[in-house]
Amino acid sequence: MESKKPEASTPRRFLRGRSLSKRVHLAAKRQTKTIGLPPGSLVYVGKEDAEKGKIGLTVFDEKKCIEKDLLQMEDLVAAKEEGGFVWVAVEGLQQVKAVEELGQRFGIHPLILEDILNTSQRPKTEEFEDYLFIVLKLIDYNASTDEILVEQVSLIIGPDFLLTFQEKHCSFLDRVHERLRTGKGRIRRLGVDHLAYCLIDSIVDNYFVALEKLAEKIELLEEEVVSNPNREILQVIHRMKTDMIFLRKSIWPLREVVNRLVISESAFIKEDVKPYLRDVYDHAVHIIDTLETYRDIVSGMLEIYLSSINHKLNEVMKLLTVISTIFMPLTFFTSWYGMNFKHMPELDEAWGYPLIGMLSLFVAVLMLFYFRRKEWI
Amino acid sequence: MESKKPEASTPRRFLRGRSLSKRVHLAAKRQTKTIGLPPGSLVYVGKEDAEKGKIGLTVFDEKKCIEKDLLQMEDLVAAKEEGGFVWVAVEGLQQVKAVEELGQRFGIHPLILEDILNTSQRPKTEEFEDYLFIVLKLIDYNASTDEILVEQVSLIIGPDFLLTFQEKHCSFLDRVHERLRTGKGRIRRLGVDHLAYCLIDSIVDNYFVALEKLAEKIELLEEEVVSNPNREILQVIHRMKTDMIFLRKSIWPLREVVNRLVISESAFIKEDVKPYLRDVYDHAVHIIDTLETYRDIVSGMLEIYLSSINHKLNEVMKLLTVISTIFMPLTFFTSWYGMNFKHMPELDEAWGYPLIGMLSLFVAVLMLFYFRRKEWI
Amino acid sequence: MESKKPEASTPRRFLRGRSLSKRVHLAAKRQTKTIGLPPGSLVYVGKEDAEKGKIGLTVFDEKKCIEKDLLQMEDLVAAKEEGGFVWVAVEGLQQVKAVEELGQRFGIHPLILEDILNTSQRPKTEEFEDYLFIVLKLIDYNASTDEILVEQVSLIIGPDFLLTFQEKHCSFLDRVHERLRTGKGRIRRLGVDHLAYCLIDSIVDNYFVALEKLAEKIELLEEEVVSNPNREILQVIHRMKTDMIFLRKSIWPLREVVNRLVISESAFIKEDVKPYLRDVYDHAVHIIDTLETYRDIVSGMLEIYLSSINHKLNEVMKLLTVISTIFMPLTFFTSWYGMNFKHMPELDEAWGYPLIGMLSLFVAVLMLFYFRRKEWI
Amino acid sequence: MESKKPEASTPRRFLRGRSLSKRVHLAAKRQTKTIGLPPGSLVYVGKEDAEKGKIGLTVFDEKKCIEKDLLQMEDLVAAKEEGGFVWVAVEGLQQVKAVEELGQRFGIHPLILEDILNTSQRPKTEEFEDYLFIVLKLIDYNASTDEILVEQVSLIIGPDFLLTFQEKHCSFLDRVHERLRTGKGRIRRLGVDHLAYCLIDSIVDNYFVALEKLAEKIELLEEEVVSNPNREILQVIHRMKTDMIFLRKSIWPLREVVNRLVISESAFIKEDVKPYLRDVYDHAVHIIDTLETYRDIVSGMLEIYLSSINHKLNEVMKLLTVISTIFMPLTFFTSWYGMNFKHMPELDEAWGYPLIGMLSLFVAVLMLFYFRRKEWI
Amino acid sequence: MESKKPEASTPRRFLRGRSLSKRVHLAAKRQTKTIGLPPGSLVYVGKEDAEKGKIGLTVFDEKKCIEKDLLQMEDLVAAKEEGGFVWVAVEGLQQVKAVEELGQRFGIHPLILEDILNTSQRPKTEEFEDYLFIVLKLIDYNASTDEILVEQVSLIIGPDFLLTFQEKHCSFLDRVHERLRTGKGRIRRLGVDHLAYCLIDSIVDNYFVALEKLAEKIELLEEEVVSNPNREILQVIHRMKTDMIFLRKSIWPLREVVNRLVISESAFIKEDVKPYLRDVYDHAVHIIDTLETYRDIVSGMLEIYLSSINHKLNEVMKLLTVISTIFMPLTFFTSWYGMNFKHMPELDEAWGYPLIGMLSLFVAVLMLFYFRRKEWI
Repeated sequence: MESKKPEASTPRRFLRGRSLSKRVHLAAKRQTKTIGLPPGSLVYVGKEDAEKGKIGLTVFDEKKCIEKDLLQMEDLVAAKEEGGFVWVAVEGLQQVKAVEELGQRFGIHPLILEDILNTSQRPKTEEFEDYLFIVLKLIDYNASTDEILVEQVSLIIGPDFLLTFQEKHCSFLDRVHERLRTGKGRIRRLGVDHLAYCLIDSIVDNYFVALEKLAEKIELLEEEVVSNPNREILQVIHRMKTDMIFLRKSIWPLREVVNRLVISESAFIKEDVKPYLRDVYDHAVHIIDTLETYRDIVSGMLEIYLSSINHKLNEVMKLLTVISTIFMPLTFFTSWYGMNFKHMPELDEAWGYPLIGMLSLFVAVLMLFYFRRKEWI
Repeated sequence: MESKKPEASTPRRFLRGRSLSKRVHLAAKRQTKTIGLPPGSLVYVGKEDAEKGKIGLTVFDEKKCIEKDLLQMEDLVAAKEEGGFVWVAVEGLQQVKAVEELGQRFGIHPLILEDILNTSQRPKTEEFEDYLFIVLKLIDYNASTDEILVEQVSLIIGPDFLLTFQEKHCSFLDRVHERLRTGKGRIRRLGVDHLAYCLIDSIVDNYFVALEKLAEKIELLEEEVVSNPNREILQVIHRMKTDMIFLRKSIWPLREVVNRLVISESAFIKEDVKPYLRDVYDHAVHIIDTLETYRDIVSGMLEIYLSSINHKLNEVMKLLTVISTIFMPLTFFTSWYGMNFKHMPELDEAWGYPLIGMLSLFVAVLMLFYFRRKEWI
Repeated sequence: MESKKPEASTPRRFLRGRSLSKRVHLAAKRQTKTIGLPPGSLVYVGKEDAEKGKIGLTVFDEKKCIEKDLLQMEDLVAAKEEGGFVWVAVEGLQQVKAVEELGQRFGIHPLILEDILNTSQRPKTEEFEDYLFIVLKLIDYNASTDEILVEQVSLIIGPDFLLTFQEKHCSFLDRVHERLRTGKGRIRRLGVDHLAYCLIDSIVDNYFVALEKLAEKIELLEEEVVSNPNREILQVIHRMKTDMIFLRKSIWPLREVVNRLVISESAFIKEDVKPYLRDVYDHAVHIIDTLETYRDIVSGMLEIYLSSINHKLNEVMKLLTVISTIFMPLTFFTSWYGMNFKHMPELDEAWGYPLIGMLSLFVAVLMLFYFRRKEWI
Repeated sequence: MESKKPEASTPRRFLRGRSLSKRVHLAAKRQTKTIGLPPGSLVYVGKEDAEKGKIGLTVFDEKKCIEKDLLQMEDLVAAKEEGGFVWVAVEGLQQVKAVEELGQRFGIHPLILEDILNTSQRPKTEEFEDYLFIVLKLIDYNASTDEILVEQVSLIIGPDFLLTFQEKHCSFLDRVHERLRTGKGRIRRLGVDHLAYCLIDSIVDNYFVALEKLAEKIELLEEEVVSNPNREILQVIHRMKTDMIFLRKSIWPLREVVNRLVISESAFIKEDVKPYLRDVYDHAVHIIDTLETYRDIVSGMLEIYLSSINHKLNEVMKLLTVISTIFMPLTFFTSWYGMNFKHMPELDEAWGYPLIGMLSLFVAVLMLFYFRRKEWI
Repeated sequence: MESKKPEASTPRRFLRGRSLSKRVHLAAKRQTKTIGLPPGSLVYVGKEDAEKGKIGLTVFDEKKCIEKDLLQMEDLVAAKEEGGFVWVAVEGLQQVKAVEELGQRFGIHPLILEDILNTSQRPKTEEFEDYLFIVLKLIDYNASTDEILVEQVSLIIGPDFLLTFQEKHCSFLDRVHERLRTGKGRIRRLGVDHLAYCLIDSIVDNYFVALEKLAEKIELLEEEVVSNPNREILQVIHRMKTDMIFLRKSIWPLREVVNRLVISESAFIKEDVKPYLRDVYDHAVHIIDTLETYRDIVSGMLEIYLSSINHKLNEVMKLLTVISTIFMPLTFFTSWYGMNFKHMPELDEAWGYPLIGMLSLFVAVLMLFYFRRKEWI
C-alpha cells in the first residue's frame, strides 16, 4: 500500500529549483572536449547555443567615465589614446575570436586565454610580469525560477586596464557599473585594482544570497523532518547536501585566491586596496564557516530522519503486537469450544456460554491494561 | 497508537530555552542587507526596535575615576583635556550617528566602523598604526528565560583610549566597571590594554556558564536516553548538537584572536599584559577542549538512543513471536477437532477431550519453557 | 521469496566492466615477487604472457623528426651522432634485457631500473645529477569493454634524451607522436622537457575520461537508488566507492609529483616549461577536488539506499498490520459463533446471522477508515 | 516481556567503578567559581571537605637527605641555610594560606598560584625568569574501589628548589621519596630537575595502569558483545568511550608539555636530563597511540553490537515467519472442513479424515524442508 | 531457531590464525612490569619461557667473512683485533646479562639497553655521538599456523660495528646472512650502514607478506559478505579491522624512522646508502597507502554487511506478509461458514460449497497476482 496519492503537506517549493548536482556530468564532459589538443588551443567548452554575447568598453578616470559597446578592436586603440583606465567587459564566451584578439592586443599568454574559455576551471590566481590573472566562480540566484547558477568569471588586471570575462550578463554586477558611472565612493579615483576589488566583493557578497536560501530551507526542513518524515524529505536533504558540496567546492579555493591577493607582492594590487581585500577575505572565511555549520546541521537532520523512520516502524509493530496479543488467545478460546468432541461437559451447561463470554472480556481487558501500563497505547 | 498523551517524565525544562539555531536564518539575512552598498557604508544590521542605547564615558588614572553618560561629543573633548585614560562604552548599535562621529574623532577607518555595526562578523583582530581592532562574540546566559544569547562586542584599543561597542547592556561586564570604580587590583594603574584584557577575560570566562548549562543537560540526558528513549529526547539531543556547533563557531576564532594578541608586536599591548592574555588563551583552549569532549559524548548518546530504539523493537517483536508461537499450534489443534468429518473416531471417545486439553497444556508449557531458556521472557 | 528472476530494470551496463578492486590481490602479490633479492635486481613483476613489446626511437630537432623501431642498441649510437633530441619509448616491460642495456648506455642507477620494472610503484619523482626520474600511473579507458586500466609509465629526462617506459601501447599517447611528427605547436623546438610535459599532460587529461564515466554512472544511480533500491544497486555503489579509492590512490601522489616538478631546481626542467606544468598541476588539483565531491555524493547515496530499504520495510509492515488488524477481530467474531454451546440464544434467532454480517462489515470499514486517516493505505 | 530479572552473566564488575564522566558537571562548575574575581585571586575550587593536608620538606644533596613535615614557614629558612636542594611537597590544596606564603617566599607570580589552586587546569608548562611552572594530570587507579581518579599536580622548578602541589596524597609517588631516601640511582646527585623528571616519569608510567584496566575490559567485552549483546553491554561500551575521551583529554596536552620541556632552552632543565625526558615523551606518545587504537577497537565493538541486535531481530522474525507459514495454511485446511455446508461430499467419506491428516502432514513437512534449505532452522 | 549447526560454507580458514588483538592486554601489561623501577633498570618484559637464545658474531670485510657463535665476551675482543666490520646479532632477549655486557663494551647508554629489552617500544630512532639507535617492529608470517607475529628488532649502528637484538630467530633475515656469506651484491664492501639497510629493507618488504594475506582475505570476504552474510563474517571483518589497526600502529612510526634516517646528518649513515634508504621509505609509504585503501574497502564491506542483513530481514517480512495476507482472509471465509446460526440460507444450498471454494481460489490468485506485480515473489 505504497502512498502514491498526492501528499499535500510536502514542501513542494523545495523541489522546484534545478539541483546543482545535475551538472556533475556536464562539468566532467566540458573538460574532455579539449583532451588531445595542443596546449593553448582556444575552444569554448560551454553551451554553444547561448545568447549572443556583448563586449562593453569603459574608459574612466577621476573626471570622466565613457561607456560604449566594443564592436571592433580599433575602438580600443582610440580609447587607449584618450588616457585613463580601460575596462573591457566580455559577456558571453562564445566570442572566441574576440577573446583571442583581446589576448593579442594586451599580450596575454595563450594558456591563460585557454583557461578563460574553459569554464570548468578551479578558482585560482596567477601572477605574470605584465598582468595578474584571477578566475572565480560567481553564484547567481534567479528568484523567478528558484535556480542557483554557478558561472565562471575571469579577471585580468594590468597597470591601467582591467579585462573581465563572464559566461553571460549578471544583473548584480550592474551595481558596480552604476557606482562607476555616478562616481559614488572612491571607485573612479582608485583605478583598476580597486575596481577589480569591487567586482570580487560583489561576487563574494552574492554567496550570502545562496546561504540565505539554504538557511530558509533548513528551517522549513527542521520542522518537516520530525512531523512528517517521508521520502521526499529524504530527497530534499540529499539535494541540499549535494548543493552544499558544490558551493563548498567553489568557495574554498575562492578564499585561497583572495588570500593570495592580500599577501601578493604584485605591483598590480596597490597597498591601499589591501585592507578592502582583507575584508573580502573575512567574508569568504565567514561563508565557509557558515556552510560547514549548515553541513553539520543537515547531517544531524538525516540522523533524525532515520530515527523518525525507526520510530514509526516501532509504532506499527506495537499496533500489530497489541492486536495479535489480544485476539490470538480469544480466538483460541472460541476455537476450543468449537471442537466437536462428544464429551465436552461445559457445552451442555447453561452457564458455559456466559462464562466464556466473561472470560474473553476479562482477558481482553487484562491485555489492554498491560499495554496501557507499558505505554504502548 | 502514537503516544500523543502528555508524558510527564519528559525533561520539559530542556525544551524551554530558545535554541541558538533559530538564528541560522537571521545571521544570513543580516549580511544580505548590506549587499550592493559601496564599502564603508554604515548600516546597523540588527533589530531596529532594540531598546534605546547608551554611551558611557569613563576617565581614569591611578588617582581618579570619573564616570558619566556621553550625551554630546563635546564632553569627550573636555574629558580628554583632563588627562588620564578614556574609555567610551557604546551600548546599543542602533546609534549609528554616534558611532560615526566617534569614528571621525578617533580616526577610525570606515571599514572598521562598518564591521562594528555589522553584528554578524566573525571574531577577528586587526592591527592599524593608530589603534588595534578586536571583534568578539560574548555569550550571555539569561537564567530567568533559560536562553543563551550571542552578542557581538568590538574593542578599539588606542594609546590612551579604549572604545567598546556592544549590542546591548551586559550585566556581567558591570563587574569590570565596579573593579575600576573601587580601584581593586592593579586595573587603574595599568591603563587601557589591561582594561581591555579584563573585558576579554570576563567574556571568555562567561563561556564557562554556557558549558555548565550544557554539562547539566548532558548529565540529565545520559539517564533519560537509556531509561526512556522517546522522540523528545531525540529533539533535545539534536538541539544540543546544534547549540554546540554554534558555540564552537564563536569560540574557535576567539581563541585565534587571543593568540594573535599574545604574539602581537603592537605597541598597544604592553609586555606586562601578555602573561594575563596567555592565561585567557589557556582558558579559551580549555573551553574548546571541553566542548569537543561534550560533542563526542553527545554523539555517543545518539548511538545509544538508536540502539535503545532497536532494542525496544526487539522486545516488541519477541512478545509478538512468543504469543504467535504459543497460540498458533493450539488454535490448529482445536480447529482440527472442529472439523465436521463423519468418521473422526477420537471425537466419540470419552478420553478425547481431556487428552487434547492436556496436549494443549503440554505444548504451551513446552513453548514457555523454550522461550524461558532463550531468555526471551 | 528472494527475487531470483531477471530484473530488467537493473542497470546492467554498470556491472559489465571489471572492477579496479580485483587488483588488490595482484598489487600485493607483485611486490612479494622481489622480496629477498639483493637491491637492484631486475625482475618484471607484471604478467609474463603480455603481448610482444616494442621500442620506438625518435630523433628530432626543429628541422627533422625521424621515427624508427629500435631493434639493436647500435642504432642508438648512430642516432645520437646525428644530433638533436632522442626519445626512446619502451612499450612492454617484459623486455628486461633491453631495459638493462638502455640503463647502462644512459647511466641509470640500478635501483631506478628496478623501480621501472616493478609496476606496483607509487607515483614519485627523483632528481639525479644526470637525469630526472618520474613514475606515473595512467588511466586507460577501454570503451569497447567498459574497463578502466591502470598502467605505470616511467619517464627519464636527461639533457638531450627522454626515455619512457610503458607496460603496453597506449593509444591516446599517439597524439603526442602525431604532434611531434607534424610539427604542430612548439613541441619540436622546445626539446625533451617540453615533450615530457606533453606526455604528462596527456596522462593527466585522460583522468577526466574516468571522471566522466563516474559522473555518468552517478547520474544513473541517483535515479535508480530512490526508485528501485535493490541489492545490485548496493554492489554497484560499493564498486564505485572502491574504484574511487583506487583512482584517488593514483592521483594524489601524481599531484605531488607535478608540484615537485614545478618547484624543482633541476636543470632538466627549463623555466619556460614551468607555466605549462603549473597548468597540469591545476588540472590534477581539479581532478582530486572532483573526485572528493563524487565520494561525498556516493556516500550520500548509500544513506539514501539504507533509508529506502527501511522505508520499504515500513511499507511491508504496514500492509501486514492492516491485514491482521482487519481480519483478526473478524475471525474472532465468526469463531465465536462457531462455538458448540447448547445455550447460545443468538444462534437461534433469525436476525443473528444478518446482524453479525453487518457488524463484521462495520468493523472492517471502521478499520479501513482508521488506517486511511493515518495515511497507511 | 522486558528482561527485568537479574542476568547473572552480566559483567557486573565493569559497572562497579564510578565513571569519569560524572565529573563533566564538576569540571565546569569549578571554573565558574572564580568568574568575576580579579586575576590572581586565590580560591581553591576543589571539595572543601577533603582530608586535612600535609606539607613535606625534604633537603638533600649527594651526602644527606633530611625529611620532615613543614609546620611553619620558619623551618624553611633554616632548611635553606643548611644548603643542598630543597623539595617542598604540598599535599592538599585546601591549605590556601600556606600556598600563598610559599608563593611569596619563592617569588611566584600570583597568576601561577591561582592556576595551582584551580584544579581544572589543562596540562601546560610556562617558563619564567626564576622558575619553570608545570601542570600535569595524574591518574590514580584505586584497586579496591575499581575507580580511576584524575588529580592535578603542579611542579615549580627553581635553580635549587622544587615545589610540588597535589590535591591529595598519592601512594605511587612514595616510590620516588623512597629512592631519594635510600639514594638508589643517581637521583640525589643530579638535583631538582632530575627529581622533577622522576616525578613526571612516575605520573606518565601510571597511565599504563589505566590502559591495562581498559585492555582487560576490552578483552572481556569482545567476548560478551557477540555472545550476549544486551543493554548493559551498551552502557559499558558507552562508559568506556567516555572514559577514553577523558583520558585522551589529559594525555594529549601532557605529551605537548613533555615535548616543550625537551626542546626547552630553560636553565632549569639541564642537558643531561633531556635524554630522560625524551624517554618520557616516547612513553606519552606510546600511550596516545595505544589509546587511539583502543578507541578504534571500541568503535568497532559498537558496530558489532548493533549488528548483533539486528541479527537477533532477524532470528526472531524468522521464527515468527516459520511458525506462521506452517500453521496458517494448516489452520485454513481444518477451518475449511469445519464449515457447516450441507453438501460437502468429502465429509461423509471414510477416507476424508485420514486424507486431510496426511495432507496436513505433507504441507508441514514441505514447509520445514523449504526452511531447512533456506538455512532458517 | 538459531543456526547452531556447522555451516560448511563458512570461510573457516579465516578463523584459524590467532588475532593480533589478543595482545592488547599483553602489550599494556608488559609496560606495567617496569613501573616504579629507577630509569635504566634492565628487565626483559617478554615471555620468560622463550626458547634458549643465541648470539651470533660475524666479522667481515671485502675479503673475508667469519661467522661464529659468541659464547664469551672475550671472543669479541679477539674478533675486533682482526679488523673489519663486526656484526653481533642477539637472538632472544631473555639473555639480559649478555645484553648488559655488550652495552658496557660498546658504551651504550643504559636507557637504550632498557628500551631494547622492553619489547613494547614504539618504532623510533635516536642519534648519539658514538652510535645510532633504531627500534623497529617486524612482521613474521608463519604459514603453517596462519599466524602473524609482531616482533621487536633493535639496531645499534656504530662506526665499524652493528648490534642487532631480536626477540627470537627470524627465518627471513637469514637471506641477509646468506648474501653476506656468499658476497652477493656490494653488501660486504659497503660496511655496517649498508648491512643495516639490508636488514631494514628485509623487514619492510616482509610487511608485504601480511598485506598479501589481507588482500587474499578481502577478496574472499567480498564474495561471502553479499552471498552469505552471517555472524562469523562479521567477526572476521572485525578481526581484520583490528589487525589493520595494529599493522598501522607498527608501520606509521616505521615510515617516520626511515625518513629520519634519510634526512639524518649522522656520520654513521654514509651518503651512498641514502638512495637505498629512500627506496625503503617509498616502500613504507606504499604499504601505508595500501593499508589505508584496505581499511576503506573493509569499512565499505561492513556497510554492505549491514545492508545485506537489512535486506534479508525485508525478505523474511515479505514472506510473512504474503502468507498472512493470503491465508487470513481465506480463514475468515471458512470460519464464517463454520458459524452455527440456524438461519444461514447459503449453507443449505447445493451451490454454496463450490461457490465458496471458487471464491477462496479467486482471492488467493488475486493476492498472488498483486504480490507478483509488486515483485515480492
